[in-house]
Amino acid sequence: MAGDTTIRMHAPVVRDGGIADRVAVEEPLEIRVGGRALAVTMRTPGHDEELAVGFLHGEGLLAGPVAAVGPTADFVNNVVEVDAPLRPDAPERRFYTTSSCGVCGKGALEEVAVHAEPLPAGRPVVDRALLAGLPDRLRQPGFDVTGGLHATGLFDVAGTLLCVREDVGRHNAMDKVIGRALLDGALPLHDRLLCVSGRLSFELVQKAAVGGCPVLVGVGAPSSLAVELAGDRGMTLAGFARRGRVNVYTGAERVRDR
Amino acid sequence: MAGDTTIRMHAPVVRDGGIADRVAVEEPLEIRVGGRALAVTMRTPGHDEELAVGFLHGEGLLAGPVAAVGPTADFVNNVVEVDAPLRPDAPERRFYTTSSCGVCGKGALEEVAVHAEPLPAGRPVVDRALLAGLPDRLRQPGFDVTGGLHATGLFDVAGTLLCVREDVGRHNAMDKVIGRALLDGALPLHDRLLCVSGRLSFELVQKAAVGGCPVLVGVGAPSSLAVELAGDRGMTLAGFARRGRVNVYTGAERVRDR
Repeated sequence: MAGDTTIRMHAPVVRDGGIADRVAVEEPLEIRVGGRALAVTMRTPGHDEELAVGFLHGEGLLAGPVAAVGPTADFVNNVVEVDAPLRPDAPERRFYTTSSCGVCGKGALEEVAVHAEPLPAGRPVVDRALLAGLPDRLRQPGFDVTGGLHATGLFDVAGTLLCVREDVGRHNAMDKVIGRALLDGALPLHDRLLCVSGRLSFELVQKAAVGGCPVLVGVGAPSSLAVELAGDRGMTLAGFARRGRVNVYTGAERVRDR
Repeated sequence: MAGDTTIRMHAPVVRDGGIADRVAVEEPLEIRVGGRALAVTMRTPGHDEELAVGFLHGEGLLAGPVAAVGPTADFVNNVVEVDAPLRPDAPERRFYTTSSCGVCGKGALEEVAVHAEPLPAGRPVVDRALLAGLPDRLRQPGFDVTGGLHATGLFDVAGTLLCVREDVGRHNAMDKVIGRALLDGALPLHDRLLCVSGRLSFELVQKAAVGGCPVLVGVGAPSSLAVELAGDRGMTLAGFARRGRVNVYTGAERVRDR
């Protein structure tokens, strides 16, 4: 199921009566734990195991390590099975985007605080110019072909790209990167930087916080709740990283001007 | 709850140690029917009644007309109550983005087909240049201030803007526009055009189809499932509407070149 990324990431279409084009692939993926369907997400196929464990981790549903992850025994299409212990309060069935938030913003912040360990205070410290340049270091071959994929990149503090994933859903790209780190035993991401190709929603800050990453940079704008949550968690949140500039909304003590 | 749009759409932040800026407001909204919580969505406050009824309609959950919609009797914050009959198979609690899709794309297409009436064949017919120019006619005052809001606009076939809504969630902006039309008794949108400021996901095509709109235009790229669903429904789907050009993926018989 994972692996065939280059094949499934984009698909041919014919438009305007004859022009061959390629569009980003969007298909549903069902995430099962112990045979029980916990979530369905619309995603770009590829790295589905990373997506599944990254999602479960980010939602705070795991009660212990992942023993195995892969296609179901009967290789049902677009279903991935995770072998891991669930928290006893895991819901019957969860859907995606807003599944972890309460009814008010305060509730959402509190719920995240339960699942996320504290971020390292005052580190890493990185140059503003490095933050501003991270989007230029995001490799996005799928976007280059389709114009329809979001990307998340994981970087070390020197700005070296360690992992990049593309997906029609911005949250999926983030889940895949963090899921990869989880499978590699690389969590928490204390001395790492995350960079996303688009806007900074509450959800992306939440996922970065649960992954232990103290610095999150986006090409686009943050939302109010994203800024609020980043401030609450002591995360460095930076947006509008374009043309050598970047706006730092929270955690400016990790950003060095020189 | 609705009405205060100008106040709640963006919020002040201070960044980089002193610069005053404004970001798009993102807050959870719980949608209740008969006291029962059906969904929580992260949205930009304002036009919450439209969002609630547009969401319920688009998900095919309504079994009859909306009698009333507004704040709960005790004015609980960020909760909107809808008085309308639900389909008997409405779930206990639904979450947002992917809640209506099955496990495979085919299932999703079939489910949409159940809820959506056929679109009018061969009409309306509109000039390609008009489609390409719709994004320029989208008024986006919130985006102009924050850079962080999606927009959906409803147009007549002459390209006159009838309704526009902005939101941190692209699906919410669409739900608000269709919800407004529902409350005005203006569904189905057979002789109307919809234009979105971003990418064209499966979900947006689904919502437009259920609203009865035969033409959907986006500034961004479509996904594979968006193209597939639009083709299946006989909808005209056009993307990359920029700088006087537009790509038509399906339903080209409604597009006139001259």
